[in-house]
Amino acid sequence: MRALLFDHHLEYTESAPLPIPPAGESLVRVSLAGICNTDVEITRGYMDFMGIIGHEFVGVAESGPLAGQRVVGEINAACGQCEMCRQGHRTHCSQRNVLGILNRQGAMAEWLVLPDENLHRVPDAVSDGQAVFVEPLAAALEILEQAHIRPTERVVVIGDGKLGQLVTQVLALTGCDLALVGRHPDKLIRAERRSVQTRLESAAVQLKGADVVVDCAGSDKGLALAAQLVRPRGRIVLKSTFHGSQTIAMTPLVVSEVTMIGSRCGPFEAALRLLVRRLVDVETLIDAVMPLAHGIAAFERAQAPGIMKVLLRPGQ
Amino acid sequence: MRALLFDHHLEYTESAPLPIPPAGESLVRVSLAGICNTDVEITRGYMDFMGIIGHEFVGVAESGPLAGQRVVGEINAACGQCEMCRQGHRTHCSQRNVLGILNRQGAMAEWLVLPDENLHRVPDAVSDGQAVFVEPLAAALEILEQAHIRPTERVVVIGDGKLGQLVTQVLALTGCDLALVGRHPDKLIRAERRSVQTRLESAAVQLKGADVVVDCAGSDKGLALAAQLVRPRGRIVLKSTFHGSQTIAMTPLVVSEVTMIGSRCGPFEAALRLLVRRLVDVETLIDAVMPLAHGIAAFERAQAPGIMKVLLRPGQ
Repeated sequence: MRALLFDHHLEYTESAPLPIPPAGESLVRVSLAGICNTDVEITRGYMDFMGIIGHEFVGVAESGPLAGQRVVGEINAACGQCEMCRQGHRTHCSQRNVLGILNRQGAMAEWLVLPDENLHRVPDAVSDGQAVFVEPLAAALEILEQAHIRPTERVVVIGDGKLGQLVTQVLALTGCDLALVGRHPDKLIRAERRSVQTRLESAAVQLKGADVVVDCAGSDKGLALAAQLVRPRGRIVLKSTFHGSQTIAMTPLVVSEVTMIGSRCGPFEAALRLLVRRLVDVETLIDAVMPLAHGIAAFERAQAPGIMKVLLRPGQ
Repeated sequence: MRALLFDHHLEYTESAPLPIPPAGESLVRVSLAGICNTDVEITRGYMDFMGIIGHEFVGVAESGPLAGQRVVGEINAACGQCEMCRQGHRTHCSQRNVLGILNRQGAMAEWLVLPDENLHRVPDAVSDGQAVFVEPLAAALEILEQAHIRPTERVVVIGDGKLGQLVTQVLALTGCDLALVGRHPDKLIRAERRSVQTRLESAAVQLKGADVVVDCAGSDKGLALAAQLVRPRGRIVLKSTFHGSQTIAMTPLVVSEVTMIGSRCGPFEAALRLLVRRLVDVETLIDAVMPLAHGIAAFERAQAPGIMKVLLRPGQ
């Protein structure tokens, strides 16, 4: 089958082996796959992943309990047996594999395989172009699963990229006093259109004293800026995952008794509900839909200035 | 008066000006002052502090509402007017000065001055040698003020120094499953005598999967080890403050959705209650009591291997 592989470099193939679902797993024909920053980080060595890349998708189940239905899929495949699984924290299973990230072939292919329990039916009211955003939208919603954001709090999101935009839309739903900080006027304007304040990074200091700061910068710069903007006893939510280490002075965060909350994958059904209720707008984030055969060019495009989401269509 | 100054280097003087308390502040004759790791960090450039060093003390008020009484004192002098003060977070006052740390002459002197409201009377049941530990004991108790530590949780304290010992004693009171990690068998044994498990740092990996890890290492090594030991969705409490930055990979903490909680100064009255109830033993942490005139030698001793608390007696 067609697939986009990472094996020290990104590579398109038409002869990847068709995956065969073991008992309890379903075969899914991928309709659309999204390019995420994490995928770009993988091409830089993040997670040392080798194989078919990609974890954001919408498709049609071709076997299993949802056969024939449009589906999206949670990316962490859990063992169900370990301490974390038994406590209900399946995304933290100590034996997990992760679609296109850790020991499991990913979504940038004609077919993929995931455990039956990972699949969620996509309601008719949600298009494929919307459903392919369920994974990152759920990751944005994870912030509200972990932290109580009060309607009266002042919240700053750092990073005007794809994840920052989704997080901004989700946090706007709380009624909080919200601002988005970024480097790109053409990206910030998307938030302004939703009546969210924005600041260029160079003017971010005006937002000092925020109750909550969410780092979606996707680089080692985000936490240092968050530390500057958060108030004493405030909270920083960490959403950025990237390859390598960073150098930071933690002592000011200790002195200010700041709480930092790492945040990753989130609730799919709640993300689907937001889409059904038309409370978030994801389709305007799509910059291009390209055939999988043009996958390498699509990755370049995804990293070009001003570009938001690039989707791949494996059927072409 | 006699005082120990830091002015690019540590210096003993007998001609420091006697402090004069403004309205609302009290003059305190210092009976004992403790050398803390933070003082050592100040001599390395932390906080860029210049002046009389020291913030742990017990003394006798010579003016103000507690005149004639033995007192200990909270170290943050607050404005009472700013947003943080009005919300009751006086230790985070944006205009604060801090005894011997920030814009206020410290405790390693014959006399000091603090706001009346910062002083707490020392109950008769508490000796001077115990009371001089109230400030660091309160800092240890701040962990329980900020985080709910359940009796069923597995907790690891990193750092077998003075603060780590106090934190270990305080956390033992919760009934939690507790272990102390350090580098010094002669310090770890203090915890073992209290029926707390211990591990040398080289064997700390045996403690992986802890619900809560408290970093009292006092250096840039603590957080990296804490990140290794904490379970997914667990908590790291950050107590270490030191000069400079550190290099750390934050992404694993994001992926594991760990919460990090900065923690600093704590509740004095609660610390005094623990001492009155004899629930913590601080006096066995005292290695030496030296005259203030030997302050420079005392700082050297405080940093020598195996040494816990060194106290200074300004009256000598």
